[in-house]
Amino acid sequence: MDFTIRAATLEDCKDISRMILELAEHEKVSDQVKITQKDLEQDGFSKNPFFHGIIAEVPEHLKSRDGHTKVGYSLYFYTYSSWKGRAVYMEDLYVMPEFRGKGIGKALMSKVSQLGLAAGCTQLNFTVLDWNKSSLDFYLKQGCWDVTSDLGYHCMRCEGDALENLAQGDL
Amino acid sequence: MDFTIRAATLEDCKDISRMILELAEHEKVSDQVKITQKDLEQDGFSKNPFFHGIIAEVPEHLKSRDGHTKVGYSLYFYTYSSWKGRAVYMEDLYVMPEFRGKGIGKALMSKVSQLGLAAGCTQLNFTVLDWNKSSLDFYLKQGCWDVTSDLGYHCMRCEGDALENLAQGDL
Repeated sequence: MDFTIRAATLEDCKDISRMILELAEHEKVSDQVKITQKDLEQDGFSKNPFFHGIIAEVPEHLKSRDGHTKVGYSLYFYTYSSWKGRAVYMEDLYVMPEFRGKGIGKALMSKVSQLGLAAGCTQLNFTVLDWNKSSLDFYLKQGCWDVTSDLGYHCMRCEGDALENLAQGDL
Repeated sequence: MDFTIRAATLEDCKDISRMILELAEHEKVSDQVKITQKDLEQDGFSKNPFFHGIIAEVPEHLKSRDGHTKVGYSLYFYTYSSWKGRAVYMEDLYVMPEFRGKGIGKALMSKVSQLGLAAGCTQLNFTVLDWNKSSLDFYLKQGCWDVTSDLGYHCMRCEGDALENLAQGDL
């Protein structure tokens, strides 16, 4: 299929915001999404951005049923392992359902890997939901491994009042 | 106990490197540590650093049995959630065994939370090994929750030849 992968710009935030919601609906958690187009513009496209993005785009004649030419995206940022050094983290990888099975997801993931290697990273990290078997199979097929299953890593989080209390030293 | 928490500088990399190894020994994976003092200096203390650090220091008269005054550290960096926005990730939290139980770990974690909130973050994220029950209990007591147990998040990784292949599109 005819598509291109390119760096996201400020003008893509409307479509990224739309696709973040589509992805969250797929993961059955759309009520969790608090991020707006404006947040993305501010956090990703000002000095010292918190993330970077890439977009998968199809030509006008292949647009989606509801008229979209931006049909997939990935958000990523650089992180650090105190054992292995520079790493790249893929926060999202999404392709609109009607454009799946055409290599767009692989191309997006490949691009994030290229960018990571070019920046001196030795790892690509991301998370997957354990019930999402088709995604898990896809990733395992690409040679990725499950750090949680194999080494017992658990993701932990502090937010809201607990984070405020922690910051104030009310422990 | 008399101790201070302060931002790490280039001059702390020797001690951070030492403590990274101590932590890895505790986690039984010291053979996994490829990062040297020089890597830390380059990756954390040049333009666009990959991480930031804080150090716990005790006065000279309280130094460790083997003469160290830098007795704990945390490495952190900023990340992004496409649902909730800005987040801070705590890569390491370590206090030398002979200085534990004195509130130094809590103070380090509190400082990372403060810095995160000041940068507009709404989440503090980190990982813990599932066999490390004392750490897990400590974190749960601070109001943190286990995203892997509660929502089924699995950490995934691609590295080495698999990452090269992915980048080259040999999928």
